[in-house]
Amino acid sequence: MSEKYFPLERSALEKLAEKYPTPFYIYDEKAIIENVRRIKTAFSVFPSYKNYFAVKALPNPYVLKILAAEGFGADCSSYPELLLAEMAGMKGEELMFSSNETPASEYAAARKMGAVINLDDFSHIEFLEKSLINAGGMPELISMRYNPGPLKEGNAIIGRPEEAKYGFMREQILRGYSLLKEKGVKRFALHTMVASNELSIPYHIETARMLFELAVEIKEKTGVCLEFVNLGGGVGIPYEPEQTAVDYHTLAFGIQKTYNEIIKPSGLDPLGIRTEWGRTVTGPYGWLVTRAIHKKDIYRKYIAVDACMADLMRPGLYGAYHHITIPGRENEPLSEIYDVVGSLCENNDKFAVQRNLPEIDAASQGGSGDFVIFHDAGAHGRSMGFNYNGKLRCGELLLRADSHASQNGSVIQIRRPETVEDYFATLDIPGVEKFC
Amino acid sequence: MSEKYFPLERSALEKLAEKYPTPFYIYDEKAIIENVRRIKTAFSVFPSYKNYFAVKALPNPYVLKILAAEGFGADCSSYPELLLAEMAGMKGEELMFSSNETPASEYAAARKMGAVINLDDFSHIEFLEKSLINAGGMPELISMRYNPGPLKEGNAIIGRPEEAKYGFMREQILRGYSLLKEKGVKRFALHTMVASNELSIPYHIETARMLFELAVEIKEKTGVCLEFVNLGGGVGIPYEPEQTAVDYHTLAFGIQKTYNEIIKPSGLDPLGIRTEWGRTVTGPYGWLVTRAIHKKDIYRKYIAVDACMADLMRPGLYGAYHHITIPGRENEPLSEIYDVVGSLCENNDKFAVQRNLPEIDAASQGGSGDFVIFHDAGAHGRSMGFNYNGKLRCGELLLRADSHASQNGSVIQIRRPETVEDYFATLDIPGVEKFC
Repeated sequence: MSEKYFPLERSALEKLAEKYPTPFYIYDEKAIIENVRRIKTAFSVFPSYKNYFAVKALPNPYVLKILAAEGFGADCSSYPELLLAEMAGMKGEELMFSSNETPASEYAAARKMGAVINLDDFSHIEFLEKSLINAGGMPELISMRYNPGPLKEGNAIIGRPEEAKYGFMREQILRGYSLLKEKGVKRFALHTMVASNELSIPYHIETARMLFELAVEIKEKTGVCLEFVNLGGGVGIPYEPEQTAVDYHTLAFGIQKTYNEIIKPSGLDPLGIRTEWGRTVTGPYGWLVTRAIHKKDIYRKYIAVDACMADLMRPGLYGAYHHITIPGRENEPLSEIYDVVGSLCENNDKFAVQRNLPEIDAASQGGSGDFVIFHDAGAHGRSMGFNYNGKLRCGELLLRADSHASQNGSVIQIRRPETVEDYFATLDIPGVEKFC
Repeated sequence: MSEKYFPLERSALEKLAEKYPTPFYIYDEKAIIENVRRIKTAFSVFPSYKNYFAVKALPNPYVLKILAAEGFGADCSSYPELLLAEMAGMKGEELMFSSNETPASEYAAARKMGAVINLDDFSHIEFLEKSLINAGGMPELISMRYNPGPLKEGNAIIGRPEEAKYGFMREQILRGYSLLKEKGVKRFALHTMVASNELSIPYHIETARMLFELAVEIKEKTGVCLEFVNLGGGVGIPYEPEQTAVDYHTLAFGIQKTYNEIIKPSGLDPLGIRTEWGRTVTGPYGWLVTRAIHKKDIYRKYIAVDACMADLMRPGLYGAYHHITIPGRENEPLSEIYDVVGSLCENNDKFAVQRNLPEIDAASQGGSGDFVIFHDAGAHGRSMGFNYNGKLRCGELLLRADSHASQNGSVIQIRRPETVEDYFATLDIPGVEKFC
């Protein structure tokens, strides 16, 4: 069971919405920091540990700055993500550049920033070298991404990595370390990322074991002693109240046991442990705050909110569950069955289908309408939005760590909502006028 | 069978790419105009006909201007889409505003522009009236959207409209016309939209029949004589070469036959026919032009191009097929099986999975790499793009109607590519610097 909370009461939210009209995202700084510290404490059992926060989960430089102050780095996969991390004060090996199908210019940018470059394919060794000829040459430290493919067939929890576009095959990665050594690289790392939003602790321990065993094989076959392994992300969060959050201590302890068993006797100890968790770090501590604007009664009952799929794609895209609460109605019976929808001209623009909820008032009936809160929107929320149908993406607020007790303390806007000017920015409007 | 063409040969494309680096969309003005004229000719059998182009398919004001010059209107579902149509010189009843879950401000904007307002729900009659109290009052002409729901159960081609969030039920729409009449509305229309990308001609004729029968029932039960019916969009295009395009004459003739059977004897003749085709109008005449940048050989063979899912979502989102050709290799054997992928950190960022293609050269092997052309990208292409992973959406070019013969004539840029500045536009960068 996971408890679903929202940090503001209805009265505080009413006041906030006067200043920042809905829809908006709001993130809870205090809860994020506490969560980060829980992760760090659990993983302090390792000789060295760092989480590279997956920027794509929540690419806001204010949030990155909070994470940087706690010692987290950034997992970036594009040049704009590197720039965001830099804006947050992260630099050098605090950045891990795990991209795939990378253009030469992005390798050069990552090299210039001193980021840890994580190669996705054997052919990129030569390509990187060529790309960096006039950009500082090969870096001292290089990581490579492993794709276990069908070597892990039969292990259901690993999924089907052989259909994934990422990474080196086992034999390729072994050759890769030898080739990098020949090219003068001095420090080495290993990375994998084989799942997404997985709540099973044994699954993640199994992934660590796979990398530890490979680290030993790399040492034996190539003489390369890895500096760290990056276990990737993919640790899930309990979107549904019936699900249970991953216990960090149990997970870290399980990985440590495997470490002691495999790494300790191999002579690779101390081996650094890295992760690239995004969702786990901020997911449960962000909410999409909307208001019910219309109520519709046809073959089903609908509640329409003032946000749409352009603001939060996961339900429409994957049928993903996001828990919904109605501030002020927490104790009312779930007497209604609604589809909760947005205004996009796409029938998959539904935040919830046939969901049990309390009776909800919509603004169109008079009054300002109930708030409708979508939980666990602190990762892969605003970042996946689009502008289909001319929809403008909403802004982001941050509830500062100082304001928790009073519930009416400081809230700052950390991203403004989009405007029509943003939507038109790539158009040459005088050009349109002259066009015939 | 549908023939897949691309209007430029490799040499002309090489020249073009020097000025406008890949990736980009390119649209063929001449082909679009010819297609529009074929549609108008076929539908000229009706007393009055207009297509409202579905702006969401290709929300570029240059393209809208081309369509406006041919007498097409615009189907808009948001305020920014109304503004785009206005930018293209469309006005008044050339605009149909078919939104759902509409906020009051957008109704007021549509009213001010004189657009045909198409209501999505019975409750919106009162809501519209309230929204327009200080904005000109109820308009003279109003349309309503019909959702046939399970009344069409058993008719497989209609799908499951009872699970769709749109429209009025039959009994509601009948009451709706009476209520609108009481409120002083003088002119009336009827709309539906029950499918997407449907190639079956009988399906579309059946939809027309459903609306014609309802038009007669509306007259009988409420005394309202409709001015037009809008058959909606949903006419498909043959994405796969094995599929056959909808023949406009066969379709128009079939609808006319139904019109003669139902509308003629009812006293509703002349009844205007409207459609809101988007995909059918521009889909086959737009291409996403990319270049192969990497080649990868692991458990499968991969070709990576310099565009990604951020530029064209349909394959990743729906597993949709987009035909691929390689300029200069049209006559080579399809000797390879590739997954054609982009660089997003999402494994569904695949433009094609296990596709038979000729051997493709990638830039990372030396040279500039083959062009990889994605066909039928003239609708729901650029418009559905997002910025996930910090990806910047590409620009759009227009091959002018003058330039066909020479293949090296005028090409203009009608949307520039996004920049990192666009990506950062909603951030307060000095604010980030001061934040702690």
